[in-house]
Amino acid sequence: MNVQAVGCACSVIMTAVLSNRESMVNSLRSVLLICGAIVAGSACAQAPITLKSMGSFHIGGREVTITGKPVKEVTFTPGGVPAKVDPNGVYQVEQMYVQYFIPQNARGALPLLMWHGGGLTGVTYETTPDGREGWLNYFLRKGWAVYNSDAVERGRSGWAMYPDVFTSEPLFLTKENPFERFRIGAGKGSYNKDVSKMKLKPGSQFPAEGYDNFTKQGVPRWTTTDDAIIRAYIELVDKVCPCVVLIHSQSGSFGQKVAQARPDKVKALVLVEPAGTGDPKLAGNLRNIPILAVYGDYIEEDPRWPTIRGNELKFLEQVKAAGGRYDVIDLPKIGIKGNSHMIMMDKNSDQIAGLIQDWLARQGLYK
Amino acid sequence: MNVQAVGCACSVIMTAVLSNRESMVNSLRSVLLICGAIVAGSACAQAPITLKSMGSFHIGGREVTITGKPVKEVTFTPGGVPAKVDPNGVYQVEQMYVQYFIPQNARGALPLLMWHGGGLTGVTYETTPDGREGWLNYFLRKGWAVYNSDAVERGRSGWAMYPDVFTSEPLFLTKENPFERFRIGAGKGSYNKDVSKMKLKPGSQFPAEGYDNFTKQGVPRWTTTDDAIIRAYIELVDKVCPCVVLIHSQSGSFGQKVAQARPDKVKALVLVEPAGTGDPKLAGNLRNIPILAVYGDYIEEDPRWPTIRGNELKFLEQVKAAGGRYDVIDLPKIGIKGNSHMIMMDKNSDQIAGLIQDWLARQGLYK
Repeated sequence: MNVQAVGCACSVIMTAVLSNRESMVNSLRSVLLICGAIVAGSACAQAPITLKSMGSFHIGGREVTITGKPVKEVTFTPGGVPAKVDPNGVYQVEQMYVQYFIPQNARGALPLLMWHGGGLTGVTYETTPDGREGWLNYFLRKGWAVYNSDAVERGRSGWAMYPDVFTSEPLFLTKENPFERFRIGAGKGSYNKDVSKMKLKPGSQFPAEGYDNFTKQGVPRWTTTDDAIIRAYIELVDKVCPCVVLIHSQSGSFGQKVAQARPDKVKALVLVEPAGTGDPKLAGNLRNIPILAVYGDYIEEDPRWPTIRGNELKFLEQVKAAGGRYDVIDLPKIGIKGNSHMIMMDKNSDQIAGLIQDWLARQGLYK
Repeated sequence: MNVQAVGCACSVIMTAVLSNRESMVNSLRSVLLICGAIVAGSACAQAPITLKSMGSFHIGGREVTITGKPVKEVTFTPGGVPAKVDPNGVYQVEQMYVQYFIPQNARGALPLLMWHGGGLTGVTYETTPDGREGWLNYFLRKGWAVYNSDAVERGRSGWAMYPDVFTSEPLFLTKENPFERFRIGAGKGSYNKDVSKMKLKPGSQFPAEGYDNFTKQGVPRWTTTDDAIIRAYIELVDKVCPCVVLIHSQSGSFGQKVAQARPDKVKALVLVEPAGTGDPKLAGNLRNIPILAVYGDYIEEDPRWPTIRGNELKFLEQVKAAGGRYDVIDLPKIGIKGNSHMIMMDKNSDQIAGLIQDWLARQGLYK
């Protein structure tokens, strides 16, 4: 029996006892007796998650004034009472949603900020599409305070009128698009609604039975909102850091550029398949920030990923030349095969989280 | 010292001891000694939240096929590698995001589902705009398993193309609109960006300093998606109920219609300022479901709320005539004044949550 299992069993018993609302003396006597008995006894499958606090906030954004539009009469609820809605006025736009979980037993030296990829939200790090605990729970259970956000115009951050505020149209993805582009399916035409007919990459770790659920996590996105997103992330860093920033895919450029803007606040960068780099002219700004880049399988056979990975490694070499340091984990090179672009959802997601956890500990960021 | 405070202190000590990673025998000896000492000793300001599990999922939705559009070349990240995106194909639409928190010490007899109002998301029930714990934490701390969702096309549920999938345009609200319409400000022109210049209803309980933050919680909405929203809520009820459903504002009609569709699954309805009713033709379907309706202040002086409230009370009388039962709490009538439409955000939000908690307990739904 390990220490965590004892904590679990004691806590279960304590809550069970307290829920009985016996007299306090009896309750405590029971707890003491049973906790004592645990030395010789049982454990539980999964320890509870004990939080000091949890909550959310929005950060950043700006106000935009819209003029010259006609007043509308809107019935918000069918059968309801119509209300006049004047679309002219001041709008709140480009704010960002952040949800946080602070463990009672903090072991991460700093908060861990999780930034998702394009067309997705913070849901990326929650339960995996096939129902296992995601990286949010993994790192929370390890004792990290986790701040999980939805980038500007994604999810709970809301989005703004176009072309009035955003200058381009939103981008929607078909169900088959990520299947092919995220190195899950074996090329063009590999997607099929019927899981048994999907053509997966040989040895794929993506939980194919959860693919349909994964597509439900998708949200529209713009490709012209990077500056607004970076502004909001910088405000987040100013509010809750020093911290560790863990990014995925699209937020690769966000994480590295924000760290370049706040090199004193970002104490480590974990780049999970970054799709973009930092600003090469400011490479030296990252010289004091340890960086880990993690890549999955099937990179070489992909039409885009050799270039994307190559650009990142070139950038990291510039950081190194300026006095920085970085580590790259190419999972297949250490014998871990089959990972898609969605590493945090793959069947071996906990194993990869463990590699990141170990790297963070080696940077002295774990108590 | 009460039982909850003892649980808090014991848990704090236990996690502190475990984090020291002393030998297990020493750890347990410390826990036993210190837990014993608590009988005579200290408590903590706020007990930790101990969760058996937490996570999220998407539910419902359907697939829509789009054809006849040109292929685009998209550079997802500036400086990245362009990808061809074919907008023709199958899209996932109208799914719903649900986040759940299951307490270790369950005392609610059934799960509590929280459904938000129009132009908002599940963030409604999280931290209040002025930074206090919201109703999600309140009921979770009381021992309810809470399922907090974003309605279809809101927040993390994502949204679909219009007019291709949704038949109308989205509706955006100015910063001043809810200020006047949600009975926070004292009528037309009462909003001001400068909090000191806002004209609040006399005695308003809304935390004016958090109003700006509240507007950041707003998301666009459609007025033509009710059927899709109801379909998704029914799927949620089929998945996680029997349960209690707590609604606010727009979801008044959703909650009552879904309960009419699943009268065996919804065991109680808490209606917080419902903006719409159930189907009068099916009023009898609610006869076995205890219903509580809660209204804030300033109803009578509002141009719309006397009608909205009157419609609901008329509907509830039809439920009663069919053998049902309901309670109405008009807060001012029991001496609680100043509540806006956003009762769960008002400064006395915990007090109102307490009234709901007591009502639920009286229905035999609390252990």
